[in-house]
Formats: sequence, C-alpha cells, structure tokens
Amino acid sequence: MKRVVSFGEIMLRLSPPGHERFFQSPELRTYFGGSEANVAVSLAHFGVRSDYVTRVPANALGDGAVRALRAEGVGVEHVVRGGSRLGLYFVESGADLRPMRVVYDRAGSAFAQLDPAGIDWAAVLTGADWLHLSGITPALGDGPARAAQEAATAARGIGATVSLDLNYRPALWAGRDPSALIRPLAESADVLIANPGAVDAMLDIRVDGALEWEKRLTAIAARVHEELGCGQVAMTHREVLSASEHGWSAALYEATGKNAHASRRYQVRIVDRVGGGDSFAAALIFARSSGRAGLDAVRFATAASALKLTIPGDFNRVSVEEVDRLLEASG
Amino acid sequence: MKRVVSFGEIMLRLSPPGHERFFQSPELRTYFGGSEANVAVSLAHFGVRSDYVTRVPANALGDGAVRALRAEGVGVEHVVRGGSRLGLYFVESGADLRPMRVVYDRAGSAFAQLDPAGIDWAAVLTGADWLHLSGITPALGDGPARAAQEAATAARGIGATVSLDLNYRPALWAGRDPSALIRPLAESADVLIANPGAVDAMLDIRVDGALEWEKRLTAIAARVHEELGCGQVAMTHREVLSASEHGWSAALYEATGKNAHASRRYQVRIVDRVGGGDSFAAALIFARSSGRAGLDAVRFATAASALKLTIPGDFNRVSVEEVDRLLEASG
Amino acid sequence: MKRVVSFGEIMLRLSPPGHERFFQSPELRTYFGGSEANVAVSLAHFGVRSDYVTRVPANALGDGAVRALRAEGVGVEHVVRGGSRLGLYFVESGADLRPMRVVYDRAGSAFAQLDPAGIDWAAVLTGADWLHLSGITPALGDGPARAAQEAATAARGIGATVSLDLNYRPALWAGRDPSALIRPLAESADVLIANPGAVDAMLDIRVDGALEWEKRLTAIAARVHEELGCGQVAMTHREVLSASEHGWSAALYEATGKNAHASRRYQVRIVDRVGGGDSFAAALIFARSSGRAGLDAVRFATAASALKLTIPGDFNRVSVEEVDRLLEASG
Amino acid sequence: MKRVVSFGEIMLRLSPPGHERFFQSPELRTYFGGSEANVAVSLAHFGVRSDYVTRVPANALGDGAVRALRAEGVGVEHVVRGGSRLGLYFVESGADLRPMRVVYDRAGSAFAQLDPAGIDWAAVLTGADWLHLSGITPALGDGPARAAQEAATAARGIGATVSLDLNYRPALWAGRDPSALIRPLAESADVLIANPGAVDAMLDIRVDGALEWEKRLTAIAARVHEELGCGQVAMTHREVLSASEHGWSAALYEATGKNAHASRRYQVRIVDRVGGGDSFAAALIFARSSGRAGLDAVRFATAASALKLTIPGDFNRVSVEEVDRLLEASG
Amino acid sequence: MKRVVSFGEIMLRLSPPGHERFFQSPELRTYFGGSEANVAVSLAHFGVRSDYVTRVPANALGDGAVRALRAEGVGVEHVVRGGSRLGLYFVESGADLRPMRVVYDRAGSAFAQLDPAGIDWAAVLTGADWLHLSGITPALGDGPARAAQEAATAARGIGATVSLDLNYRPALWAGRDPSALIRPLAESADVLIANPGAVDAMLDIRVDGALEWEKRLTAIAARVHEELGCGQVAMTHREVLSASEHGWSAALYEATGKNAHASRRYQVRIVDRVGGGDSFAAALIFARSSGRAGLDAVRFATAASALKLTIPGDFNRVSVEEVDRLLEASG
Amino acid sequence: MKRVVSFGEIMLRLSPPGHERFFQSPELRTYFGGSEANVAVSLAHFGVRSDYVTRVPANALGDGAVRALRAEGVGVEHVVRGGSRLGLYFVESGADLRPMRVVYDRAGSAFAQLDPAGIDWAAVLTGADWLHLSGITPALGDGPARAAQEAATAARGIGATVSLDLNYRPALWAGRDPSALIRPLAESADVLIANPGAVDAMLDIRVDGALEWEKRLTAIAARVHEELGCGQVAMTHREVLSASEHGWSAALYEATGKNAHASRRYQVRIVDRVGGGDSFAAALIFARSSGRAGLDAVRFATAASALKLTIPGDFNRVSVEEVDRLLEASG
Repeated sequence: MKRVVSFGEIMLRLSPPGHERFFQSPELRTYFGGSEANVAVSLAHFGVRSDYVTRVPANALGDGAVRALRAEGVGVEHVVRGGSRLGLYFVESGADLRPMRVVYDRAGSAFAQLDPAGIDWAAVLTGADWLHLSGITPALGDGPARAAQEAATAARGIGATVSLDLNYRPALWAGRDPSALIRPLAESADVLIANPGAVDAMLDIRVDGALEWEKRLTAIAARVHEELGCGQVAMTHREVLSASEHGWSAALYEATGKNAHASRRYQVRIVDRVGGGDSFAAALIFARSSGRAGLDAVRFATAASALKLTIPGDFNRVSVEEVDRLLEASG
Repeated sequence: MKRVVSFGEIMLRLSPPGHERFFQSPELRTYFGGSEANVAVSLAHFGVRSDYVTRVPANALGDGAVRALRAEGVGVEHVVRGGSRLGLYFVESGADLRPMRVVYDRAGSAFAQLDPAGIDWAAVLTGADWLHLSGITPALGDGPARAAQEAATAARGIGATVSLDLNYRPALWAGRDPSALIRPLAESADVLIANPGAVDAMLDIRVDGALEWEKRLTAIAARVHEELGCGQVAMTHREVLSASEHGWSAALYEATGKNAHASRRYQVRIVDRVGGGDSFAAALIFARSSGRAGLDAVRFATAASALKLTIPGDFNRVSVEEVDRLLEASG
Repeated sequence: MKRVVSFGEIMLRLSPPGHERFFQSPELRTYFGGSEANVAVSLAHFGVRSDYVTRVPANALGDGAVRALRAEGVGVEHVVRGGSRLGLYFVESGADLRPMRVVYDRAGSAFAQLDPAGIDWAAVLTGADWLHLSGITPALGDGPARAAQEAATAARGIGATVSLDLNYRPALWAGRDPSALIRPLAESADVLIANPGAVDAMLDIRVDGALEWEKRLTAIAARVHEELGCGQVAMTHREVLSASEHGWSAALYEATGKNAHASRRYQVRIVDRVGGGDSFAAALIFARSSGRAGLDAVRFATAASALKLTIPGDFNRVSVEEVDRLLEASG
Repeated sequence: MKRVVSFGEIMLRLSPPGHERFFQSPELRTYFGGSEANVAVSLAHFGVRSDYVTRVPANALGDGAVRALRAEGVGVEHVVRGGSRLGLYFVESGADLRPMRVVYDRAGSAFAQLDPAGIDWAAVLTGADWLHLSGITPALGDGPARAAQEAATAARGIGATVSLDLNYRPALWAGRDPSALIRPLAESADVLIANPGAVDAMLDIRVDGALEWEKRLTAIAARVHEELGCGQVAMTHREVLSASEHGWSAALYEATGKNAHASRRYQVRIVDRVGGGDSFAAALIFARSSGRAGLDAVRFATAASALKLTIPGDFNRVSVEEVDRLLEASG
Repeated sequence: MKRVVSFGEIMLRLSPPGHERFFQSPELRTYFGGSEANVAVSLAHFGVRSDYVTRVPANALGDGAVRALRAEGVGVEHVVRGGSRLGLYFVESGADLRPMRVVYDRAGSAFAQLDPAGIDWAAVLTGADWLHLSGITPALGDGPARAAQEAATAARGIGATVSLDLNYRPALWAGRDPSALIRPLAESADVLIANPGAVDAMLDIRVDGALEWEKRLTAIAARVHEELGCGQVAMTHREVLSASEHGWSAALYEATGKNAHASRRYQVRIVDRVGGGDSFAAALIFARSSGRAGLDAVRFATAASALKLTIPGDFNRVSVEEVDRLLEASG
Repeated sequence: MKRVVSFGEIMLRLSPPGHERFFQSPELRTYFGGSEANVAVSLAHFGVRSDYVTRVPANALGDGAVRALRAEGVGVEHVVRGGSRLGLYFVESGADLRPMRVVYDRAGSAFAQLDPAGIDWAAVLTGADWLHLSGITPALGDGPARAAQEAATAARGIGATVSLDLNYRPALWAGRDPSALIRPLAESADVLIANPGAVDAMLDIRVDGALEWEKRLTAIAARVHEELGCGQVAMTHREVLSASEHGWSAALYEATGKNAHASRRYQVRIVDRVGGGDSFAAALIFARSSGRAGLDAVRFATAASALKLTIPGDFNRVSVEEVDRLLEASG
C-alpha cells in the first residue's frame, strides 16, 4: 500500500440545517474540512495509507479536528499542536437560484502561525510515495509558505511524487501577486491540478481564451510543462447551473504523450458542493499511484468527485468499489 | 428611508419536517406568517422602515408573533394586544406529485375580532409613505374590513401610496360576494396586485379568456384602471409544474403608458412555496418607492420572489444586493 | 378481559423541546392528550379492552388524534368525526423554580360542539364493564354535558361501574357554579376521584380544613358517600416541591368498610407532570376491575401514576408488570 | 367494506437522516416495513379492513412493530408473538449518482422461525375477501413457506381472491431454485404481480427479450395464465434514472380479454424509493376489489404508487381521494 | 418608561446538545450572549426601553447578533457595523461532577478593535436614565477601554445613573493589573456589582477574609464607597455544589443607611449557568430604577437571576410578573 | 507510553432520545460499545497506546464500529473482518423510578462466531505491556472462549500483565456453569475486577455474606488470591438509588500487603449509566501501569468512572487531567 502525505490547514465548518439561511434556526451542523485534509480523507477511504500534517490548537477544537481525521482513517501522528485558535468557516448551502454563501473566519489560526522549523520533513516523509500540497497554504502566511516549499523540496529529494492543486482563492491573496510564491512550488510539482483562471492568476500563464475547452487545456498544460516542468496537468470544469445542479467534468494532460484525456460530463443534483475539487485530486492521486493509465485515471477521478457532490460535508466518503461501479453504470 | 405600513393578520404556521406527512413524526416546525406580515418583513430586509399593524392575543403565542416580527426588523409599536387566540395554520409541504396541503385554524382569532376603533390611523400613518393591504383582511370579519377601509382612506388623505394585493382565497369568502367589500378598497389603491381569477371573483372584471397572457393582462389592467382608478396593476403567474417545481413570472401594467412590462420566467426548485406572492408585493413596493422604473421594478420583484421560493418559511429573507445579483446573473 | 369505555375530549398538545421557553427555538413537539383519553390509553397498556368516545374534526388533526389513540391500542370505532377544529394546548414544562406554563386554545372545538344525539350509548356500551368520565366534559358545553349524563345513565342501566374524576379546572367554569352539573353526575358514579378543593368547588361538600390529611379524606369521603352515594372515593395528593420534583401519594376510601387505605409517598424527579392524575384513575380502574382489594388497588394506582411522571407526554405507557415491579422494589 | 388479509414478515428499518452516509451522524430514523406489511398499511389508508398476520418477538421491538401497524389502522389480532428477534434492515438513501445501499440483518428472525401450526388459517380468514402474499415469505424458511402455501389453499377454499407479488430478491434465494416453492404458490393465485426478471427466475417462464415492453408483458402474462392459471398479471416498470429520479409505470393483463392495459408513465423526484411495488399491489387490490375495471385499476395503482415515492418511510400514507385527485390532475 | 443603555461586546456561543462533550455529535446549538448584552435583553423583558451599543462585523454573524438582540426587544439603533470577526465562545455544559468547560475565541473581534471616536455618546445617551458597563470591556482593548470611560463620563454629565459589574475574568487580564483601568471607571459608577475576589483583584480593596459573609460584604462595600464613592454595592454569591446544582444568593449595601440587605438563598437545579450574574445586574437596575427599596430590590434581583439558571441560553427571558410570582411563592 | 491490548466484542447500541420509551419517537441515537471496547477507548483518552482486537462484519455496521474506535484513538490494526452481523443492543435509559431497560440482539454475531485460529496472538501482543479481557467473551461461544484463553496464555508468556473483569451477565450463561471457563482464565490474570455476586457465580468462591463491605471484600480477595493467584482484586460498588441517581465507590485489595484500599463514595446524577464498570477497569489499568500506588489507583479509578456516569454513550471521554482535577476538588 502506498503512503501519501498531505499538508495544509484544517478548519471547522459550521452550516445551518438543510436549505436554511444563517441563524434562521439555532442549530449549526459541524464538519471539519480543508482542501488538503479533504484529499487525505478521501485517500484513506480508497485504502491508501494517508497521513495529514497540519497545526491545530491544543484545545477542544483542535481535538475535534484530530478526532475527525482519525475517524476517517487518516494518520495524525505528525499533527502539530499549538497556537491560539482553529480556523472556522460558515457555509450557507443555498438552493437553486440562491447561491451558496461562505463567511471565513480563519485569520490568526494555529496553522497560519505555524513555525516551519517545527516540522521535520525528513522524518515525516520517510516511506512516503507522494506529497500533496495546495496553493492555499502559501497564501496563509510566511510560515505555511516556507513549510510547503520545504516539504516539496524534501519530497523531491527522496523521489516521492509531488502534486499541487492551485486552488485559487482571490480573497486570500488580496493585493498580492501569488506567482512569486506559487511558481517555485509548481516547479517542484510532478502533477498540477488547476483551472485556466488559476493558471493565469497564480502562474502568469495564459493562452488564447477563444480556444474550445480541450484545445485550451492542452495549450495551457503544454505551457505549464514547458515553463515549470510538471509532467501531468489536470483541470476540472464545474458549471454552476444553479446552487442545486452542477455540470462536472475534467481532463488530464500528460507531457509524455503531449495529449489530453477527457472524462465524460456528469450533471449532478448537489447535496454538498464543498470539496469537489479536492476529491478529484485525491482520486487522481489514487489512480496514478495505483497504476491506472491517463484516460482511466481522469475518468476515475471525475466519477469519484461527482459522487462527492452527493455527500454531505467536505469529505468524500466513497470507496474505490463505489467509484468503479459508477464508472461501469455510466458506461 | 421610506416608511411603509402594512396591516393584516399574522398567524402561527406549523409544519412537519422535510417531506413528511402530518404527524408522521412528533415534530412540528414553527414559522410565523401572513400575507401582509410577509410583505412587512421583506421590506425590512430591503432596508425600508417597515411597521406592522395587527392584533394578537396577550399570551405566549402573541408574544411569539411580535418577537418574530421584531427579529426581522419590523416595527411593532402599533401592534394591538388582546383577544383570545392567535390564528394558526398547518402546512404539509408535499413533494413532486404530492401537492401541498393546508389546514387553517384561524376562526375566532384576535385579529378577526379586532375593533376598528382601537387603531388611530392618523397616528399610525404619521410619516408613512406607503400603506399595504390585502384582500384577505376584509374577509376575516367586520372589524378588520372596516379597519382596512379606514386605513386606506387615511393613507390617501396624507398622500401616501396605497397598494392592495387581492389575494383571493375562495374558502374565506364561502357564500359571500367579495366585490362589495373589495371594490371600494381597490378604488383607494394606487397599486393593485392580482391575477386574472382574483380580478374576476373580487372585482367583477373579466376579459376574453382566450387572449394570450400579456394581452390578457393588459386588457384586465386597463379595465381595472378605467373602473377603479388604480394606476399600476401587477400580476404574478405561478405555474405549478409539481409540488417541487414552479414556473414563476410577472408583469406590471402602468396606466400612464398604457403598457405592460413583463419579467423573465424563472423555473424554480421549490424549498417553500408559501409567501411567493407576498414577496413579490414587497419587492414591487420597494422598487417603486426607491425609484425603479416599470420594467426594472417588475424584474426586481420577480427575481426577489423567485428567490423566496428557495427559502424555508413564509418570510423572504433576502437583501436588495442579493436580488440585484440574481438579476445580473440571470441576464 | 374487561371492557372499559371512556368519554371526553382529546387535544393536540404542543411543547417546546427540553427546558426551553415558548418559541425559543422553532421546534414544537406534538403529543395528543386529554384527561379521559389518557385514562383510555393507560388502560390499553394494562391489557384492558379500552374504547374511547370523542368527537374530532374530519381533517388532518382529527386523523392525527385517532391515529395516536389507535397506536396505543385504544378502540376508536365510536369516535365521531365532524366540527371545525381540534382543541389545542401549548405546554412549557418549566424547570425547578420556573413553573410549568400552559396556554389553552380549545374554544370552539369539535368536542365542545358535539351533539349528544349523535352518540347511541346503548350501542357504544354493549358489553362494557366500566364507564369513565371526568368533570371537565360538562364544563365544555351543553352538548358534552348532556352526553356525559346520558352515558352515565346508560351505563348504570346495564350494570356497568361508573367512575368520575372531578378534575376541577377553575378556568373552564369561569363565573359558573359547577355543582348543578356535577352533583347529578356524581350521583351516577360508583367511584369518585377527587381532591378536597374539587369536592368543595364542584360538589359543595367541605369539611374541617384543620384535619390532618387521612382524617380529612375520610370525612370528605363519608360525606360524599352519604350525600351522593359513591361507594369508593379516591384522592391524590401532589406536592409541587418545584417544577422538577413532586411528592406523590393517594388514598382510597371504601364505604363498605368506612375506612381509608393510604399509599406510600413517592418523591419523583419530573420528566412530564401532565397526566399524573389520569394515570392514577386508569390504574385504579384496572386494579378494581381485576379484583385487587382496596389497599392493593391504591398502592398499584399510586405506583403507576408515579411512573407516569417519568414518561414524556400525556400518556402512561407502562405495563402491569412494570408497576408491580416498582411496588416490589419500593417495598 | 371488504376485508383483506396479508401475511409476511415485518422488520425494523433504520436510516441515517437525509442524504447522509451510514454513521455519518449518530442518528438513525426508524420505520417499520416489509413487503406485505406495506400492502396491509396502504389498504388500511384506502379504508379497507386490513389485517396483518406475522410473527414478532415478545419484546420492545415486537411491540414497536405491532404499534406501528395499529397506528396505521391495520388489524393486529392475528399477530403471533414469540421467537428471539425482529428482522432489521439498514437503508442509506443515496442521492443522484450515488445509489441506495441496504444492509439486511434478518436471519434468525421470529418470522423466519415461525411454526405454521401456530396459525389457524380457517379462523384468520373467516370473512376475508382477499389474501395477499409475496414471494419473499417462502424464501425465509420452511415454516413461512409452508404457512404461505396453507394460507393460499385456505383462502381458495373459502372463495377469497389470492394475490401474489413475486418480489424477487436474489440474495434471499442464494443457491436455491425458487421455482419449486413459488410455482405452486402462483398456481393458487388469481392475481400475480411481477416483472419479467422475476417471472424468469421464479416461475421459469421467459419470452423473447427483444419484444417491446407492452408486447413482452402480454406474452409473459399469457404464458403465466396458461401454465399457472392466474387470471390477472400486473407488472410494474421502474426506471432508475438516478437515486433521486425514477420513471414509474405499469401494465395489467387480464386473461378474460387477453389484453393488457398500460398506465401513463410518471417521472418522480424520489423522497423514499422503498415500498413502491408494495403500494402498487395494495392499490391494485383496492381497485379490483372495489370494482374498478382493468384500465382504471392499473391507472389507480400506478398513480398511488407514484405518490408513495414522494413519502418518507415504507408505508404509502395516501387516501383514495388523493390518488383520484392525482389521476384527474395528470389527465 | 425608563431608558437604559448598555455597552459591551456580544458574541456567538456554540454549545453541544444536552450533556454531550464537544464534538460528540455533529450539532452545535447557537446562542448570542455577552455580559452587558445579557443585561440589555433582561431589561427589555422587564419592559424597560433598553438599547445596546456594540460593534459587530458587517457579515452574517454580525447580522445574527443584531437579529438576536432585536428579537428580544433591545434597541439596536446604535450598533456599529465593521471589523473582521465576531467573538465566539464554545460552551460544554458539564453535568454533576463534570464541570462546565469553555473555549473562548474572541481575539481580534470587531468589538475589541472598536474606535472610540466612532460612538457619539452625547447622541447615544440622549434621554437615557441609566448606563450599564462591565469590567470585561476595558480588558478587551484600548478602544473599548476608552469608549467605556467616555460613556461613563457622558452619562454622569447628563445625570444618568451608572452601574458597573466588575465581572472579573482573570484570563482576559493575563499579566496586566486591572486596577489602573477599572478604578477610574468605578469612580464614575453609582452602583457597583461585584464579588470579594473581583474587588480585590480589580480595585485593590480587600478586607479580613475571616469575616462571615454579610459582615465581609459590608466591610468591602464601605471601603468601596469610601475610596471610590459608589453609593450602592451589590454582591452575588454562587456556590457551585456541582455542575448541576448551585446555591444562589446576594446582598446589597447602601451607603446612605450604611447597611446591607441580604436575599434568601435559592438552591437551583441548573439548566444553563451562563448569565446568572448578568441577570442579577439587570434585575437590580430594573428594581432600583422602578423605585423598589433596597431589600425588595435585592430580593427581586436574586429571584430573577435564580430563574435565569433554569433557562437555556445566556438571556434571562422572564417577565416582572414571573419574578414577583416566585418571590410570593418562596415567601 | 505503555501499550494495552483489549479483546472482546463491540456492538451497536441504539437508544431513544432523552427519557423517551422505545419507539415513542422515530429517532434512535447510535453509540458503539462493549465492555472491553469501552476499556480500550478510555485508555486511549488517557494517552495510552490502546489496541482493540475483535471481529466485525465486512459491511457498513462493521465499518461503523471500526470508525468509532478509530475516532477515539484506539488502534484497529488487528480487528478481524468477517461474519454476518454485528451484535446490537437497544437501551431505554429510564428515569428516576422507571429503571433502564435493555433488549439484546447479539446472537449469531461476527464475534461470537470468531475462529480463534484467525488471531495470531504472538503478533498482536508484540510490544504489549498489558492485556485486558472480560468474563463476557467466554460466554459468547467456543471460539471467543478459546481465543480469550489463548490470549491470556500468550500475554503471560511475554510477561505482560493480564486483567480480567468478571462482568457477570446471568442471561449469557443461561443454564451453564461459568466456572469451568472462567476459573482457568482468572488463573491467568494478575488483576481481577469483580463484585461479590460475580465471584460467587463465576469462580465458586463465597464468603460470609453478613460481613460489612470492606471486610467482605478483603475476605473474598484473599480467597481469590489463594485459590487463583491474582495479585490484585478490585471491586466496584454501585447503589442504584434510582435510574437517575447512583452511589458509586470501589476498593482494591493487594495481595502483597494483604490489605484493601477504599475510595470515597460519589453520589452521581446519572447521564448514562452504561460503561461505569468498564471505565473503572480502564482507569485502574492506567493508574497501575503508570505507577500509581494502591490507594491512589483506586481513587483515580473511582473518580474516573464516576465521571463516566455523567457522559452520554458507553465511552468514558475524559482525560487524566480531568480525573485528577475531580480528585483535587473532591478532596
């Protein structure tokens, strides 16, 4: 069994029940989540040895985050405890014409104030086959940014594959140019997960916007490979038809063959839209590291993440068998 | 900021959770609502100074009704306390092929037994720019009927705009001809909100039923203007495709230009169908009183009320910004 | 198996969850209950053939009431359907220093407007061994009052035992003297369940208030027997130590031996105080009709009703075995 | 009013709330259900005198099952108490792309270990017009199998109609050939409810699979009639478009006219897919036994069961009026 | 009707249901609260015109806080909107031997970063009879500290009474000496609410600890009056017998008579221990400003706050009548 | 950090909410638990490396059990997957006079049908310091009985301490004499946890019942040591004052000093009585293996298990710090 290490923040999410607006009733449903944590959890559900590295406070909220990861089968041996607070976010799901609404409250979190010296990446990565990072981490503070770069460097050093999901969140970069931090990180990555807007904003790479989807992806990916060296570039395509219905598809470019593999498109009645991209990343990591070829891998990853959209919470609690069954059923 | 006064009953609504049938489980969800109260609440969410005039008993249910209005930002200074009971209604939402089911229990309510002498309309309306009434109130009893007419007269007297939503509920008029009470009220109204069936039943005005929708509206509205003097006539058009999916559109006729402005049509996956028409009225009042022209006003009102259909409860808890954002998104 | 017929109103009770005040959260928990209905249900749980006679509207609330009775094993064959509304009551449980709070909304109920001609008591009582009534019914309206008297007369006619629980509710008698209606009913009763205040207010019988509890009971009961002929008089004694803790005991006077049997006193941490007296009446009926002697009967009835105080809702869902087990355990 | 007797298992169903996966939250919602029990309940809602014969343990779970039947108006006089456990099943509803998931835990149930000598069918069926059975019962054990056959024989003996819903569940027959048990039972049946796969597996009857739906049904039904003598053969057709959306239609073949009547097709947004076929059977029984002709009967049964798909739980809590209203509304 | 202005933070409280530990289930119950906000709400329930001055962010959490205040009848006209986050706190209630557990997450709140220049106290206090402050506010930051002092000065200037509840929270003052900020504030206060430990830590006033309770209070209060000029000093006395049971009593010293009035002691089964002291302060303000004399005032305030301990959430939702009824009942 | 291995069944527990009776509402709350699993979980909360060995089915219920253990920090590497069902038990909590009620449904469970050959104890116990067993396991079947004995033998072989909690459940031994299986197991145990009744029934050891508690314990323990060699014997003493209030104390006998150490007695308002003895065992294991002497150990274990009674579910989610804080607070 392969061992994958993921690194990033984990937050407490609070959501009103069903389709309610914030504080319409006095209940909030808790979930724990975060882009890379979602990847770690999905990998554990696929049977992969999955460890998560993060920093959470030594209080009941930090305990809750660790407990949530552990419940899903994620290794938490390298979780650092300290700092004053856990990042939070409040999510109102919306419904049909009424869009999802998110209030972030993550400033000053234990993770944002992480000291990179507190993580011994050589020890953490011993026996690891893969390291997963996202473009959110460098935006959160100097400590996380440096820790992410050090992790990538250490992983390359031991021959582990490195994946980076750009995960562009404009609000986190307010007034700053992401490329200075993200380009070096991308140069360390074998697998880049992105979408055209993120590549533009975070890597300063843009192509003719008039190209149709597959050609555009191929052009972007070729440029990414050329400039930054990433051997695989995956892009997901979410069409928000309404808060309750999304189109979902993806494609994967492989530099070796200079070609792109496209998945089919799923149209999904949304149960929970959070974590779709993360579950794609997890499933792609699983598929590649378990030997599935390009087209099979992107099909698997797209089916897995389409399933995620039907599951409450940030985590994709589906097994490999369930994904394969959907692939069969959807031809 | 404009000040709008609304007058009518407010009731306690009790609904089983989710898609359950009545008493399938021992929980009921409470909401407070009522046609004009829903208007008052929506106006408060739009930032308008919105006061509600009603009568509720001096017990815990009356307290609950006042508390609900106050929570939404509605002024309750002029709520009269007294009488023996609060009107109730029980709503089973239905689902898809299974229609919504309502059991009313409003007879003998504090509001139905209201003494019109107990409301000093001159005082209540001081500083008011708009008065909103509905055709439900006159059906509830002599007291409410007289109070509504007095309110309309007082409002005209101080130059406030008067809107009347016909809100035809056949069960409330059982065996009585509404027109004797409603026509005089409509004559006091500047803005009439209706649909063809209500105009027929309550105003004795009918046009060729074979006309297509926009022409029919124009014909009706012209007749309404001619006979009763209302300068603006708005009509909403709800197509009940199933208990879970409605078509929703509206049009507004302006006597000045003798023309009708039609909104686009929204097809909405229903979260809660109650209060759609009321939220249209509120948004139309907001739009007109904040200076939006005819087409913009009907577009705003239709978008606002389409959003209502995605929100649990009777109240339309959306802001002006959210409505404008939907207008932008839906072109 | 004996067959007991009970006659009275059944209402929908609505309570906020746990210790909350009214409308503190938007949930209400529903129960169905009513003094005589509670008796009928408890009897069914004791394995007695128990039929309930009442009138509920032909709507979803009436259906819910019938369903609730049926679920507990009560025969509903003689429930009359009609009228416009089901009586309601809202109960806030209170806690410790904060007393229970009840808002009744039962005026104009289907039962209050019952036509006594609609019940064929000869048919209803065929094969019945016992008829149970309460002093609430005559307070609700002429129809119920006459029906109760007719039922008692019919029961006497076929040799069935008649029990009457005075159940004095001052608010229901506002400004009226209950004795004119209640004394004749009591004269038809073999078993009277009461407390000193009720006997005073409803039967115009009072004794020296300075007597200690058992002597006072004996004196009252002897007078009741003398004046009205009831062979057995039972009295419950509830000490409200707080909303959360009650003392609970009872005594039974038998005219044959001219002596009173006293139960032990239970001190109970209250889960739901509603229905304590009704469960006492039911257990007394069961005990007497299944041949338990005076002391055993009052012990059984007191233990059964002490158990009721630990059960949510109005109904006493305990079996004979459970009551006997408590009697054993409590010596 | 007709009297219908149904015989089979009843189980406790446990489902996580909403669209959650198993054990995602610590709540489970309980329902009671079972193919024939669902039929009995639906018949009671249609106003039919409906009795259920089953065996449940003499513990709190058995009590719960009896209580659930009684609440819906089903006669439980002939329910046998005994055995060690109630069958259970756990249902995760799924959503859209994610299919429903069921874990059965019914081995060793009180019903499976039923002793056929414990049921006196002559007594049970006295006054019955109809007996309903399903193909699940014989699969559960020798006792149930023999009891079902005895019931069918006894019903034929008194001239009652016998209906059999094949209800093919491959897992229950693992490694066994159903036909030896099912063919004799089918020979006792006047009305057979099935689908092509079940007829193939359980009756060893198969026709040209390339035939279009209505022709195929007619061919199968004719063969069933020819070989086994059933005068009416009904087939439902469920198209699982997703876990959230099904197509639903049916047809009924009558041997007398040698023709098939097809219902319209409903496309239903699923609230709860369990019990669709059972509610079809119940509605067909009601329609035939209340004199509706072939086409009307299949229309009624299809509409009733389409409504079931919008109701939480296994039971179809709809009235005849509601079904007829849907028939009118859907033309 | 008097008008009372209170100033301080308001936070969102999040609690697991019932007696659960944090994150034992995925639900959290929300309440809004804060020492001075609790005072403002309780005053509104007593029928006082009660305004709250605070600063909350212009997001959904700030909206929720304003809505919660408004629902209870508190004036929110002077609430400032801005800043980045609302303070939060997580409360696990504990049970019996297991103590309550609180995790604060209030650093960097909108209130802590309040600019005192943003509040025009002259305008805010126009027509006010009373200003209420607590010792928490100065601990939260320079802005709040200055604003509190300015408010006190302005209130004195217009002849309004000023009350200060010391509310000593050691964690907020970590490493700082409160007296430099609190003594000047106390000098502006007419009414001081405290306990011996707080007076010691925040005012540098201590007396012989061996004195029995009433003498000790008198000694402290005399010193407070002497040194700082406060005419009334009230102290509450909470005995934590367990997480589920508290003793609760209080005393009030009046400088005019140089004497202390002691309440009776309540022993209360706790529903929610948060906000006990705040509800005492509110009831004392109500009692004094409505003319109740010293002993009556402290009795009223103690009874009111004992009732608070039986109500879920931070707010004391009791009326004057309910408090007076408890006073009567408890002699 | 020490490593403790526990072996036994784990079951799914289902309980109605709050004080409800079974199936009074349609909700059940799930917990996972089992005597030895509860020990393993409590040890993990104390920071011990705690592994659980059991067998659960390869279905969603087995997954749920593993997930529950993992969430609490228990190692699940040696959990065997297989068999057809997970054991279940249904618990109604009772209240005050109404006792707890349990319905077991564990026959035929995956654990009961465990093949001892499937567990390689040498591998499982590598690095273990302690093995914990209970007297329930041998009662469940031959496989579990043999596996328990093999585990004890293997643990002795590597010098690990073995503890055995007799946990006498008469229903599990119906008609069988436990001593043949339990005495050999007890001979392998260093630490025996029991109560006088269990020692009598399972070890055939009894002493003069008239002795007072501490003398009786000493006499029993001395006999146990003499006959079976156990060096430490601990006994808990639960006084069921009502379903809502228990007395709780314990004593520990050490053969070395031939003396017994008694804890203080806690009187606890019960939140959940299940798992009290298990949490005592866990805390005793922790205390002894972390070097606490006899009196300190029994005090710690008694305080820890008294805290358990305040926590919902079977698991004792308390930390060492929390227990020590209670010890300090309770002197």
